[in-house]
Amino acid sequence: MKKEIVSGRKFIKPSFAYLIEKKRDGGEFTDEEIRFIVDSVYDEEMPDFQLAALIMAIYFQGMSAQETATLAEEVMLSGDVVDLSKIAKPKIDKYSTGGVGDKTSIVLAPLAAACGVVSPSLKGLEEDFVISDFDKLSAIKGFNSKLSLKEIVKQLDDIGCVICAQNEQITPVDTRLYEMRKKTSTIPSIPLITGSVLSKKLAEGAEGLVVDVKWGNGSYIKDLEQAKQLARSIIRVSRSMNRRCVALVTDMNQPLGDCVGTALEIQEAIQLLKGQGPEDLKELVLKLGMEIVRLAGVAGSTLSAKQTVQKVLKNGKAFEVFKQMIKAQGGDTACIDNPDLFPKAKNIRKLPAPKRGYVHTINAGMIARGVQILASNKKGGYDPAVGISEIRKVGTQVKQGEPLMMIHYNDEALLEPALEYLRSAYRLAPKRPATPQLVVERVA
Amino acid sequence: MKKEIVSGRKFIKPSFAYLIEKKRDGGEFTDEEIRFIVDSVYDEEMPDFQLAALIMAIYFQGMSAQETATLAEEVMLSGDVVDLSKIAKPKIDKYSTGGVGDKTSIVLAPLAAACGVVSPSLKGLEEDFVISDFDKLSAIKGFNSKLSLKEIVKQLDDIGCVICAQNEQITPVDTRLYEMRKKTSTIPSIPLITGSVLSKKLAEGAEGLVVDVKWGNGSYIKDLEQAKQLARSIIRVSRSMNRRCVALVTDMNQPLGDCVGTALEIQEAIQLLKGQGPEDLKELVLKLGMEIVRLAGVAGSTLSAKQTVQKVLKNGKAFEVFKQMIKAQGGDTACIDNPDLFPKAKNIRKLPAPKRGYVHTINAGMIARGVQILASNKKGGYDPAVGISEIRKVGTQVKQGEPLMMIHYNDEALLEPALEYLRSAYRLAPKRPATPQLVVERVA
Repeated sequence: MKKEIVSGRKFIKPSFAYLIEKKRDGGEFTDEEIRFIVDSVYDEEMPDFQLAALIMAIYFQGMSAQETATLAEEVMLSGDVVDLSKIAKPKIDKYSTGGVGDKTSIVLAPLAAACGVVSPSLKGLEEDFVISDFDKLSAIKGFNSKLSLKEIVKQLDDIGCVICAQNEQITPVDTRLYEMRKKTSTIPSIPLITGSVLSKKLAEGAEGLVVDVKWGNGSYIKDLEQAKQLARSIIRVSRSMNRRCVALVTDMNQPLGDCVGTALEIQEAIQLLKGQGPEDLKELVLKLGMEIVRLAGVAGSTLSAKQTVQKVLKNGKAFEVFKQMIKAQGGDTACIDNPDLFPKAKNIRKLPAPKRGYVHTINAGMIARGVQILASNKKGGYDPAVGISEIRKVGTQVKQGEPLMMIHYNDEALLEPALEYLRSAYRLAPKRPATPQLVVERVA
Repeated sequence: MKKEIVSGRKFIKPSFAYLIEKKRDGGEFTDEEIRFIVDSVYDEEMPDFQLAALIMAIYFQGMSAQETATLAEEVMLSGDVVDLSKIAKPKIDKYSTGGVGDKTSIVLAPLAAACGVVSPSLKGLEEDFVISDFDKLSAIKGFNSKLSLKEIVKQLDDIGCVICAQNEQITPVDTRLYEMRKKTSTIPSIPLITGSVLSKKLAEGAEGLVVDVKWGNGSYIKDLEQAKQLARSIIRVSRSMNRRCVALVTDMNQPLGDCVGTALEIQEAIQLLKGQGPEDLKELVLKLGMEIVRLAGVAGSTLSAKQTVQKVLKNGKAFEVFKQMIKAQGGDTACIDNPDLFPKAKNIRKLPAPKRGYVHTINAGMIARGVQILASNKKGGYDPAVGISEIRKVGTQVKQGEPLMMIHYNDEALLEPALEYLRSAYRLAPKRPATPQLVVERVA
């Protein structure tokens, strides 16, 4: 990183061991120290093992809003920053911590664009068990998720949205930090998640950000309190970076929508873009969409935000922009109009309820693992045709033998290991459970 | 490590990320998991950065006595274990966490041998600021601190004591862990210190261990409570390993004795071996010596332990064994009888008291740094002649201009930077401070 530290006094480079010790003992890094750390990661001057120790110390001791903001800023500057200044429209992005069956990102990018809000959705690294948006979009023949920065800017200018892989030129330090965190079990560090999200999203040229922080057995954040803390951390830090931001804390204790799986989820996303689909996803799309248009200044009140979002879903504009985006990224749009063209699994069978009762809990993480097994093929690839559909959600009453879900599979050998997870994911109880609240908290 | 895990059930190798996560969340490792970790460090299968993250997680979450005992046992077995079973005498070692001006180890090895207790003093890696026993003994011409395991056993059989560098064949995993801890600021982890000490000392063939845990500004353990915890941890873990162990927690808030420096300290050690020397060191040598002979079973009561130790100091036997040891390790004993033959600095000057008053505190860490600067030469070596002597200890009354210490130096250019530390180490006050207690606690 060729940056000179401009400061009245001279900054004397500290040793890495000193920096680790400082954080180990709960100290707060100065802006210069954060800058030095990011530079040293970028230049590969900090050995991996010292970086690992530093990250673990941060995991235990945390970072202040000021430290995290400086981290986000410096990591953002470690690579290219997409220049969208020539596009006059507001640029608002959406970020989710990731959940099972979540198709909202695929829906919200074209929806926002249809409302006149530019949405640069560059997807980074995800938790292992989540099917990424690319995996889902790869069910569409020809779809290209690898765009150059120039292509990204052009498409945003033309259509207003893009869903593509994070470019290597963007926040390279975040990529290194994330890889290290994954291998050292330090993913759930609130300041590090905050820094990572903000650095990436701001590097993509977003002026504001709507964040969906998921908590529950289908999220890597298992604890509601921790999810709230993360939401507040992102808001606090984005504020000290002078960026607009809203965060919703949402329930991820059962899969979102009726299906999990690549081609299946894309079809559900298409339904949502037409204003159809399962209630929980419709609610989430509406609420997140409203936040986007309000943050963008496209709608001033809650009511007008609702009307704006509902309008582009009803009049087909959101769906139209989606098709344009797919086409612009080389995808074959035939399947969008005719879902029969999507890859289909050879076999479909039900998972029968072992007894009568109400669906009391569903472990979304286990569902994800089950689907992952179904989709794994020997070549290490991902089978887009398989998955589960018609998921009976929490609170549904079932008779013994009635389906809890339909399982779409190709490889008989994978069925039994997958079933182990899918079966264990369900708990039935004689009493109807309380209806879970989808949006638990809004932080702004 | 070619060891088979013998167990009723099969041990499935966990991923390193899983082990890090388990400790991160405060979990307790099974014996098999500890064994797997030690094996993986030995085989260099665990990447450095995962080891670093694991160690930092241990720093924050600690380890149980059972975990620590298994760690010590496994690390001990990672290399050769010295077989002293053919030597009929009791084998008791002494270990100190390290302090400024501490000469007791050099005194206690021959003292123990003179009392009929075999003392295998293999010195490992030390904190940077402490002058190691080898550095001190290197002031004796020809002294060889690198012995083979065979030579060590022979010398222990012949003379009863040895002071030499830790052999590379002994606890290689500890060496790797220590190096990693040093670079990742995780030295002060109580279970890791405990595991390190016990693994090394037991690998040297010691049956029992007397530990001197130092606390204060001249120790890496700054906090008394932490020192007590370490003492208790060592005792608890050694007990669960069925080894005899006693620990003293001692004050290290000012240098021990009257001098700091290589040749100067050896001369003070020789005085102590003759039953002379400064009071604080005489007290510490006596108390630690008494613990050694009691632990060895050579003396049954406190009184007889005291008599045993005092006898070998008075009748010259401890001194005689010291000379034998130096001779056996190739050292020129002429200087031992005639201290004028020790290397001497060209210049000696006083550090004058800036005002009248009582010596209120002395920062021993700063004293050590000052001496380190005096002793550093351009070749990266250590000048044995330099150091400080006639240190005025806490509680001494001084007039303005009276010496706080005498500084022995060779290089004028190093004097001023050294003086900065030496001067700042002293705080004078108008009132006499309370006399510090040398031995704060005894844990057995």
